[in-house]
Amino acid sequence: MKSMNWKTVLLLSVSFGICALAQTKSETPKKRDDLNKPLVIASQGSFFVGGDSKSLTAAPGPGGPGGGDITINQMYVQYQIPQDGDRHVPVVMVHGCCLSSKTWETTPDGRMGWSEYFVRKGRSVYLADQSSRARSGFDASILNSVRGGAVPPNQLPNVLMASHQTAWSVFRFGASFGKPFADEQFPIEAMEEFYKQMIPDLNSTLPNPNPTLKNMAALAVKVKGAVLMGHSESGFFPEQAALIDPSGVKGIISIEMPCPTMTAAQMSTLAKIPTVIMFGDHLSDVQGGPANWSANFDGCGRFVDQLKAAGGDAVMMHLPKLGIKGNSHMLMQDRNNLDLADLLIKWIDEHVEKASKKR
Amino acid sequence: MKSMNWKTVLLLSVSFGICALAQTKSETPKKRDDLNKPLVIASQGSFFVGGDSKSLTAAPGPGGPGGGDITINQMYVQYQIPQDGDRHVPVVMVHGCCLSSKTWETTPDGRMGWSEYFVRKGRSVYLADQSSRARSGFDASILNSVRGGAVPPNQLPNVLMASHQTAWSVFRFGASFGKPFADEQFPIEAMEEFYKQMIPDLNSTLPNPNPTLKNMAALAVKVKGAVLMGHSESGFFPEQAALIDPSGVKGIISIEMPCPTMTAAQMSTLAKIPTVIMFGDHLSDVQGGPANWSANFDGCGRFVDQLKAAGGDAVMMHLPKLGIKGNSHMLMQDRNNLDLADLLIKWIDEHVEKASKKR
Repeated sequence: MKSMNWKTVLLLSVSFGICALAQTKSETPKKRDDLNKPLVIASQGSFFVGGDSKSLTAAPGPGGPGGGDITINQMYVQYQIPQDGDRHVPVVMVHGCCLSSKTWETTPDGRMGWSEYFVRKGRSVYLADQSSRARSGFDASILNSVRGGAVPPNQLPNVLMASHQTAWSVFRFGASFGKPFADEQFPIEAMEEFYKQMIPDLNSTLPNPNPTLKNMAALAVKVKGAVLMGHSESGFFPEQAALIDPSGVKGIISIEMPCPTMTAAQMSTLAKIPTVIMFGDHLSDVQGGPANWSANFDGCGRFVDQLKAAGGDAVMMHLPKLGIKGNSHMLMQDRNNLDLADLLIKWIDEHVEKASKKR
Repeated sequence: MKSMNWKTVLLLSVSFGICALAQTKSETPKKRDDLNKPLVIASQGSFFVGGDSKSLTAAPGPGGPGGGDITINQMYVQYQIPQDGDRHVPVVMVHGCCLSSKTWETTPDGRMGWSEYFVRKGRSVYLADQSSRARSGFDASILNSVRGGAVPPNQLPNVLMASHQTAWSVFRFGASFGKPFADEQFPIEAMEEFYKQMIPDLNSTLPNPNPTLKNMAALAVKVKGAVLMGHSESGFFPEQAALIDPSGVKGIISIEMPCPTMTAAQMSTLAKIPTVIMFGDHLSDVQGGPANWSANFDGCGRFVDQLKAAGGDAVMMHLPKLGIKGNSHMLMQDRNNLDLADLLIKWIDEHVEKASKKR
């Protein structure tokens, strides 16, 4: 399945004023021919960053917690390094709420995801499962304590579960459940496969600050500098990681999230790091639901302005403004996902890599 | 870090009766030179097998469950297909208790794991996170129901958490906590990294029979025939999957598990599938703990005998009997892990692939 070439669409839109053409899935076989070539990997593997030991108290009775030490707060990282991978800055991708690193892999309808595409474009890619999610595990000791009666039920963590209905609202597949937008870029026909990506979010079991933040900062140092990418729940994690330790953070890609208010001191730190923020389409077209994308967009617009005012290199990529229409919140899985990846790779080249050579 | 060549060791052991040489980490540079070459992948990606929809009832009050539908019981699968991957039968690897597919990747001390090694040996490899574990997610609705007071705490699932102390006992790193066996093959110096692999096991949230079993059978069919490999908790899953649907199961690799008693009808089905069972060392040398490896080994010995009596091709690989000493329960991460992989690849070639050509 080929996706549209956004440049072509932009050109057509400008030339003829026919924005509806953005919905057309025009073929660009030449551009993507190389995706079917064998992928050559210099090295790949997985490891953990961070992690703390916790001693459990043994308690009597069936269902009570056993004793011993467990490890919690660790962050699982899976990586692939292409040949000549040291020619580009590595990219760390961190998924959002109720999802795992599956976010960046094969799309629900079976197309290539951003993780492999970035590798094919010569980037070393590190996929991190947030601490307390997926292969990073979580601290389950409270469950057995409540089960054994040692702790009252209201001490249980609030586990976030994204229902199918919530997904349609938060991920902006359509204005109401089951009814996609006319120009929806998400592969709606593969929705059942997407639902399988949504897994319980146990971030409420984590200490404050969230250990994923320091783990991301440590990962950036470990790989000798990286662009940190976050999405949605983790969209502002790159900034928060940089506020803990900016030394490894060479660039920040933040995708569709709320942007909290920063102090002048925080803004001064963040303004030293090239930052791009990406938002998709239909931000005001979904009524109700837990996310207010329009307000988030406005808040992040102010954040970009403040970064610039502090001397920073900050870009807001609002896709509809570039003539790219119909993108959902899961834009890394949308039909035009590789066109969006190209935008980000170009941004890295120009704002992170060329800029660092000038400095 | 190079590991011993088991054939050399076996030869030496037989020739000179010097079994202690099995502990020597002799260099075999020629044999493993190719591990540093770039890895060429024809295709890679991830997808899900199985999964069921579940409707949640909305309940009032803070912490009560929200409404809507969620997907549960799905199994996340990550794969790599080498060039000319269709020359060999694909291999499906499924991890054990309190672990994820990380089991098969980079070892705690940073050496190559079985997943990449099998790919480098021309095999398509599919890593499955068990349903209810890691990227497969789990049904967390009971947690929020208990938290909201709709369900009593004793209905919470018993979450298995492997403590560091349990790991030393069950995984046979030494006779007691912190004291490795003199000939221990597990990379003890990287124990902190191994502890991070251990994550909560929520299999008690699953319906009976465990959906992972039918998902494994379906995966074998989907890839047009596969060798199914299980370990420990999942060690007998390949057999159980084959009893649900044997049509895709071309071979079974079962590593260190209990072998339950089968009926004659079940044995008749299983005897049609080439089977190898692998057990490591020190089976009787760890006192106490939840696992009785000596009894498990004896039970699986009887299972192998019954398979043979039913006309099956069944092999028990008890590593110490082959002169290979000091292997832990996590033998796919032991220092000699690639030598053990070679044993299994040779078994696949001779018992699954050559045998199927004869039939």
